[in-house]
Amino acid sequence: MSHTLEELASDVGGRVEGDATCVIENVASLASAGPRQISFYTGGKHKTALANTQAGAVILCDKHLSATTNNCLVVSNPLLAFALIAAKLNPVESKSGIHPDASVDETASIDASAYIGAQSVIGADVEIKAGVVIEPSCVVEQKCVIGENSFLHANVTLNHGTRIGKNTIIYSGAVIGGDGFGMANNEGRWIKIPQLGIVDIGDDVEVGANTTIDRGALDDTVIGNGVKLDNQIQIAHNVRIGDHTAIAGCVGIAGSVVIGRYCTIAGGVGITDQVQIADNVHITATSLVTQSITESGAYSSGTPLQENAKWQRNYVRFTQLDDIAKRLKRIETELKK
Amino acid sequence: MSHTLEELASDVGGRVEGDATCVIENVASLASAGPRQISFYTGGKHKTALANTQAGAVILCDKHLSATTNNCLVVSNPLLAFALIAAKLNPVESKSGIHPDASVDETASIDASAYIGAQSVIGADVEIKAGVVIEPSCVVEQKCVIGENSFLHANVTLNHGTRIGKNTIIYSGAVIGGDGFGMANNEGRWIKIPQLGIVDIGDDVEVGANTTIDRGALDDTVIGNGVKLDNQIQIAHNVRIGDHTAIAGCVGIAGSVVIGRYCTIAGGVGITDQVQIADNVHITATSLVTQSITESGAYSSGTPLQENAKWQRNYVRFTQLDDIAKRLKRIETELKK
Amino acid sequence: MSHTLEELASDVGGRVEGDATCVIENVASLASAGPRQISFYTGGKHKTALANTQAGAVILCDKHLSATTNNCLVVSNPLLAFALIAAKLNPVESKSGIHPDASVDETASIDASAYIGAQSVIGADVEIKAGVVIEPSCVVEQKCVIGENSFLHANVTLNHGTRIGKNTIIYSGAVIGGDGFGMANNEGRWIKIPQLGIVDIGDDVEVGANTTIDRGALDDTVIGNGVKLDNQIQIAHNVRIGDHTAIAGCVGIAGSVVIGRYCTIAGGVGITDQVQIADNVHITATSLVTQSITESGAYSSGTPLQENAKWQRNYVRFTQLDDIAKRLKRIETELKK
Repeated sequence: MSHTLEELASDVGGRVEGDATCVIENVASLASAGPRQISFYTGGKHKTALANTQAGAVILCDKHLSATTNNCLVVSNPLLAFALIAAKLNPVESKSGIHPDASVDETASIDASAYIGAQSVIGADVEIKAGVVIEPSCVVEQKCVIGENSFLHANVTLNHGTRIGKNTIIYSGAVIGGDGFGMANNEGRWIKIPQLGIVDIGDDVEVGANTTIDRGALDDTVIGNGVKLDNQIQIAHNVRIGDHTAIAGCVGIAGSVVIGRYCTIAGGVGITDQVQIADNVHITATSLVTQSITESGAYSSGTPLQENAKWQRNYVRFTQLDDIAKRLKRIETELKK
Repeated sequence: MSHTLEELASDVGGRVEGDATCVIENVASLASAGPRQISFYTGGKHKTALANTQAGAVILCDKHLSATTNNCLVVSNPLLAFALIAAKLNPVESKSGIHPDASVDETASIDASAYIGAQSVIGADVEIKAGVVIEPSCVVEQKCVIGENSFLHANVTLNHGTRIGKNTIIYSGAVIGGDGFGMANNEGRWIKIPQLGIVDIGDDVEVGANTTIDRGALDDTVIGNGVKLDNQIQIAHNVRIGDHTAIAGCVGIAGSVVIGRYCTIAGGVGITDQVQIADNVHITATSLVTQSITESGAYSSGTPLQENAKWQRNYVRFTQLDDIAKRLKRIETELKK
Repeated sequence: MSHTLEELASDVGGRVEGDATCVIENVASLASAGPRQISFYTGGKHKTALANTQAGAVILCDKHLSATTNNCLVVSNPLLAFALIAAKLNPVESKSGIHPDASVDETASIDASAYIGAQSVIGADVEIKAGVVIEPSCVVEQKCVIGENSFLHANVTLNHGTRIGKNTIIYSGAVIGGDGFGMANNEGRWIKIPQLGIVDIGDDVEVGANTTIDRGALDDTVIGNGVKLDNQIQIAHNVRIGDHTAIAGCVGIAGSVVIGRYCTIAGGVGITDQVQIADNVHITATSLVTQSITESGAYSSGTPLQENAKWQRNYVRFTQLDDIAKRLKRIETELKK
C-alpha cells in the first residue's frame, strides 16, 4: 500500500510543496515518522517536532508552510486530510461468512457478504445486511436489524429489537437496548414498569466501549445520524440525540432528555431528566445540566482545582455564601445612609 | 392478549368512568395510543396530549378526571396501575432447557424449569433454581447460587460464589463479584490483598447494564431486597445497601459504605469510603458525599450551570472565597467601631 | 492449609507475642474471626473489635500491642503482613489446558502451562506465555501478547495488538484497545481518524471490571508497571500512566494525559486532555483537573454536601460571586477614603 504525495494530494484536494513524487506508505506522528510516512501539523506546541521531523511529508495549512523545509501537502483542514489519508493507507480488512463456532438462529436473515465471528449469538428474526461485520462473542437478540457495512466489535450486546443504521461502529462491551430505569413506587417499594420501546440508532454513528443505551419505555430511544459517542456513556430511556452531536466519555444522560444537532458534550457531564438542549450547544467537562438550554453557546459548571489546604478553606466558605452575600448587602445599605 | 377495561380496573382496584366494555390490547403513550391501547396521565406538561389522545382509555386519578372526555380508569396511583397493567399485557415469555451451545459443568445443579442460553458458561457446583433464565453468553462461575425466577440478560458475569435471590434481574454487561480494590502499600509499591468475601444480592433486585459490584475483602458485599440499581454504577467491596433503596446511573460508591433503606441516590453521585447513610435519605445528582448522613432528608452539592464566560469569572472567584469572607469580616468589625 | 503463628511471623519478618505454636488456617475480620484465624488491626475505630476478637492471633504494630491480650504478630506494616499472609493461606488454584469449547486460531502460540476457558476466542498470531489464565468468554484478538502468569477474568476483551506484561490481572468486562475518540470535523460532520497505536500494559498491573483503555491514535497508550486501576475507569488514547500509580473507580482520563509515578487519584476524578501530572500527586474524589500539575502534593476541587434547602441558597449565590467580589472591593476602596 503506497502512493505518491501527488496522488494523496489529489485525493484530498490539496497542493504539494516540494517533491510530489515522494512515496508514502503510511502515517505517523511528527516525532516518530520516517521518510516513507506522512504526518500532520495543526499548530500549537508541536512546532519543534515539526522542525525536526524525519517525515517524508507533512500535511499542514498555508500559514504554517514557512515553519518547515519538508515536503508539504497544503490543505485548508489538515486534520481532515490526515483522517482521509490515514483511512486510505489503513483499509479495514473485509471478511465474510459465519464462523463455525457462532450460534445463529435459523430464522435470522444474514447477507452472504456479512461476517459473524466465533461464539457470537444471533437470535430469531434478526436481519443482518450486506457488509456487516460482527466480531466474536457478540449477542444480537431477536428482531434486531443491522444496516449495511455496520461493524460490531467483540462482546457487544444488542438487546431485542435494536435497530442500527448503515456504516455504524459499536465498540466492545457496549450494551444497547437494556431496560430503562422505570419504576412506580408502591408504599416505599419499587414496581418495575415494562420497557416496551426500542433503541433506534442512525447511520455513521459510533458507540464507544462499555457505553450503555437503554430502550424506550413506550416510545423509542433515538440516536441521530453521525452521532459520535465515546466510552462509558450512559444514555437513559427515551433520550433523543440530534444528528452530528459528539459526546465524550463518562457522560450520564437521564430519561427523556432531548439534545440538539451539532452539540459537543465534554467528558463526565451529567444531564438530568427531561432537559432539552438546543442545537450547537457546547458543554464543558463535568458540568451538571439541570435545566433546558434554549440558546446555542458554551456552558459550564464547577469549581477550580486547588492545593488541598487552600481548597479546604474556600470549600467551607461555600456553605456561608448566602450569608456572605446578605452581609455585604447590609453593609452597602448602611454605607448609603 | 386483550382485556376489557373493566377487567383491568378490577385487577388494579380502580373504577371505570366511561365504557367499561372497551377492549384494551396494550399500553402506549398518550401521543401514540390508538383505540385498543391504554395510556396514563400523572399531571404536568402532558395536559395537551391528554386532551388530544386517541387512547381507548386513560389511567389517572380523580383530580384529573375533568381534563378528558376519554374512557378513564381512576386509581389513586396511576403510575403504579400502569406498571401492573403493562406487565399483564406484556408477559415475559417463559422458556426452559439448556441450549446445546452452552458449556455447563457436570457438577452444576440446574432446575429442569430453568433456561441456559447459547454460549453461556456455568461453572462447578453452581446452583440454578426453578424458573431462572440465563440469556446467551453469560458466565456463572463456580459456587454461584441463583434463586427462583431470577433473570440474567446476555453477557452478564457472576464471579465465583455470588449469591442472587429470587425474582432478581441482572442486565447485560453487569459484573458481580470482581475483586475489591484492596491493596497494602510497601514502600511505594502496591501489594494486592486477597478479596475473600462474596457478593450477596437479595430478592426483587435489579442491577443495571455494565454496573459492577465488587466482592467483599473478608466479609461480604450485601445488596438488600428490592434494591434497584441503574446502569454504570460502581459498588466497591463491603458496601451494604438497605432494602428498597434506588440508585441512578453512574453513581460510584467506595469501600465499606453503608446505605440505609428507602433512600434515593440520583445520577453521578460519589460516596467516599466508610460513609454511613441513614434511611430515607435523598441525594441529588452528582453530589459528593464525604461524611456520614445521620438524618433523613434531601442533600446536595455542586454549583449551577452558566454561560461559559460568566461562569469563568465566578469560577476564579471561588479560589478567593476564604479571602472574601475574611475581608468582609474585617469591614464589619471596622464599621462597628 | 495451616501454619503455626511462628511460621507466619518468619514469612513476614515479624515477631510473635503470645503462643507461637498457635495454628492458623485462614484470615478473617476481627469481628468474625475464630481461634484458627488471624486478623489485623491498623488503629482507628476498630479498637472495641480488637478487644473483643476471638481470633487466634492479630497482626498489629508495636504501639497497639497493649490494646489486646491476644496472641499477636508484631510487624511495622500490619496491612502489608496481612496481605502476604492472606495470599499464602488462599493460593490461586493453578490450571492449564484449552477447554474444548474455546475457539483458538491455529496460528496462536499458547504455552502448554496456560489455561484457556470455555467459549473464549483467541485470534490469529496471539502469543500467550507460561502460566497465563484466560477465564471463560474472553476475546483476545489478533496479535495480542500476554506475559507470564497474567490472568484474564471472564468476559475480558483485548482488541488487536494489545500487549500485557507479566503477573497482570484484568477483571471481567474490561475492554482494552478500543479505538480512541479521534475525529476531524468537516463542516459540522465528524470524520473518523483511524486509531493505529496499541495499548501497552506493564507488569504487576491490575485493570478493574468494566474499565476501558483506548488504543493510541498514532503512538501507543502506555500503562506502567505496578499501576492499579479500579473499576469503570475510562482511559483515552495516548494516555501514559507512570509506575505504581493507583486510580480509583469511575475516573475519566482524556486523550494524551501524562500521569507521573506514585500518584493516587481518588474516585470520580476527571482529567481533561493534554494535562501533565507530576510524580507523587494525590487528587481527592470527583475533582476536575484542567491544567497540568507540576508539583507533588494533594489537590482538590468541588463544594461541600449540604441539606438541600441550605445548599440551594448558596448554589444561587455562586452565580453572583464575581459581583460580590467587585462590590466588596468597592467598599474597601470607599472605606480607605
